Amino acid sequence: MQAMDIEKVNSMDFGEFVDVFGNVIERCPLIAAAVWSQRPFSNLEDLEKHFFAFIDALPQSGREGILRCHPDLAGRELQQGTLSAESLREQRGAGLTSLDAGERLRLAELNGQYRARFGFPFVLAARRSDRAAVPRELERRLRCAPAQELRTALAEVKKIGHLRLADLLGAHPAGL
Amino acid sequence: MQAMDIEKVNSMDFGEFVDVFGNVIERCPLIAAAVWSQRPFSNLEDLEKHFFAFIDALPQSGREGILRCHPDLAGRELQQGTLSAESLREQRGAGLTSLDAGERLRLAELNGQYRARFGFPFVLAARRSDRAAVPRELERRLRCAPAQELRTALAEVKKIGHLRLADLLGAHPAGL
Repeated sequence: MQAMDIEKVNSMDFGEFVDVFGNVIERCPLIAAAVWSQRPFSNLEDLEKHFFAFIDALPQSGREGILRCHPDLAGRELQQGTLSAESLREQRGAGLTSLDAGERLRLAELNGQYRARFGFPFVLAARRSDRAAVPRELERRLRCAPAQELRTALAEVKKIGHLRLADLLGAHPAGL
Repeated sequence: MQAMDIEKVNSMDFGEFVDVFGNVIERCPLIAAAVWSQRPFSNLEDLEKHFFAFIDALPQSGREGILRCHPDLAGRELQQGTLSAESLREQRGAGLTSLDAGERLRLAELNGQYRARFGFPFVLAARRSDRAAVPRELERRLRCAPAQELRTALAEVKKIGHLRLADLLGAHPAGL
C-alpha cells in the first residue's frame, strides 16, 4: 500500500477521496464522502477526528446501521469470498482464515447468538486479536448490557478506522 | 424482480433487509441498515418515510455525502461497467447507454462543470427523463444557487429511492 502525505489528501477531488478513504469505515463510503466537506485537513489526526465526529453525531439508528454494514468474523462472506479487501486482510492477520471446522462452527454459533441479542453483528478490531482471543471476547461481550455493548462495538469501529487510516497515510508499517 | 408484501419485509433479519434495500439510496447501505431499527413498518409509505427522515436528519455534509456516492450520468462508471444494477437499469431506461460520441462528450463536459461548481455530482431520476432532456436539465441546474441546488439534488435522490422501493414492493409495474 502506498503511503501519502496530507497535502496529497487535501488536493483530491471527491471522487478520488472516496476511492481512497471510502472503506475506512467498513462499507460506509457515505461517511468518507461527507468528511470530504471538511477539507483541508491539517494532519492524520485531524482527518480521523472528522470521521469519528460524523459517527458520533448520527442518531442511534445510524450508529447501529454502521455496525450492520460489517461482516461476521469468519462468517459467510469469508466463505463466499465477498469480504472487502481490508476486512479479508484483517481477518487473515488474526488467523481467522485458517480455522478448523470446529472453531468455525463455534464462532458461527456465537455470532448468531450475538446478532439475535443485540441486532447488529459482533465487531472487533481483528488485527489486534487472534484466533483464540476472538471467541473468548465474543463470549464476554455477549453478556454485556445492550447500551454498553453498542458503545464497545463503536469503539471497535473506530479502532479499525484508525488502523486503516494509519496504513493509508503511512503512519506505521503496513504489516499486520 | 419479485414483489413482496410488508409482512415479509417486517420478518427480515438485518442481513436480509440490507441485501434487499441496501441500494434504495445509491451506494448507501448504511441508510437501509439504520432504517431497519424502525421496524415494523405499516406499509410502503411508512418504510419510505423512514428512509427520507434519516436523510433529512443528517448534517449538510452527510446530505452532500449521499450525493457524492452517486455516479455521473453516462460517465466513467457506465463506460467501465461498474454501475450498480439499479443505476444501469435507470440510465438505460433514459437512453443514456446508447448516446453517440458527441452526446457523451457534451454530458462529460457538463458533468465536470457541475461537479466543480457544487462539489457533488449531477443527480437526476433518470427513469423520468430521456437523452434529450438530461443535458438540458443539467444546463439549467448548473445556473442555480448552491443551497437551492443541494435541495433539488436531494429531492431527486428521494424520487430515485421512491421508484426503487416501489419496484421492490411491487407498487407499480417494474417496466423501465
